[in-house]
Amino acid sequence: MDASNPSTRSGGEVRLEPLSSYDCWQLVTQAGGPDGIARVVWSGPDHPAIVPVNYVVADGFLWFQTSPESRLARECCDRRVLVEVDHVDPAHRTGWSVIVTGVATCLAAADDPGVLGDLQVWPRGARQLLVRVEPDELSGRRLRPQQ
Amino acid sequence: MDASNPSTRSGGEVRLEPLSSYDCWQLVTQAGGPDGIARVVWSGPDHPAIVPVNYVVADGFLWFQTSPESRLARECCDRRVLVEVDHVDPAHRTGWSVIVTGVATCLAAADDPGVLGDLQVWPRGARQLLVRVEPDELSGRRLRPQQ
Repeated sequence: MDASNPSTRSGGEVRLEPLSSYDCWQLVTQAGGPDGIARVVWSGPDHPAIVPVNYVVADGFLWFQTSPESRLARECCDRRVLVEVDHVDPAHRTGWSVIVTGVATCLAAADDPGVLGDLQVWPRGARQLLVRVEPDELSGRRLRPQQ
Repeated sequence: MDASNPSTRSGGEVRLEPLSSYDCWQLVTQAGGPDGIARVVWSGPDHPAIVPVNYVVADGFLWFQTSPESRLARECCDRRVLVEVDHVDPAHRTGWSVIVTGVATCLAAADDPGVLGDLQVWPRGARQLLVRVEPDELSGRRLRPQQ
């Protein structure tokens, strides 16, 4: 799905096109919820880190939960993170990918503003920390059937 | 899917468990191929970057293609990258995620050692660069139904 220049070499009958900010919001919002999976990326002390999380979009923020002891909590609170969400359809070789960039703010889950009902984290375990990412940049690309 | 400590708070009837190196290799190998999607993560000049790619596993390496003009090519050749592959089953709320860490080596596609046949990049475009990641670290986690 990596972007490149048009050329005679073709990998298939689909092409990559950029997504508008509106489309990015629509796709990320629709893909979130009880079954929504995003990947949080950040700069660790040595190299970047990536962790999949369940997430939801509410009030213009992306929300997810973690435990206060997790590496995510230790290294991301009040720092800039990337959140990647994608969807692929192998049968048609189409799909999309959206990257949200923003600062992560960590709140006690007890201060939930009402998003936890939609944020059903799949694995068992304590996740007393609610993480809110305020997007300041959205970018995305979609693989479309070639016209 | 973020890891955390066991507790009374439960998000479902599944739990996260670490994967062995053997299982990581098996899953990443099986998930690669013509329809395989991985996400390459690296440290950019300002903040981390992430790009989905089609990939294949061959001869103990992960392989993908890109164009020489891509940001991936400009910033990743001879540098350490993370490659994340995951699979989720929303119906059962199970899945797995594997992260491969290693140095990316960029080769001309003309020097293909025989992997391009299995590496069918979905979007149209020139991808004359073949990128080989030599894993020096694999880690992964699986969401299993709770026993």
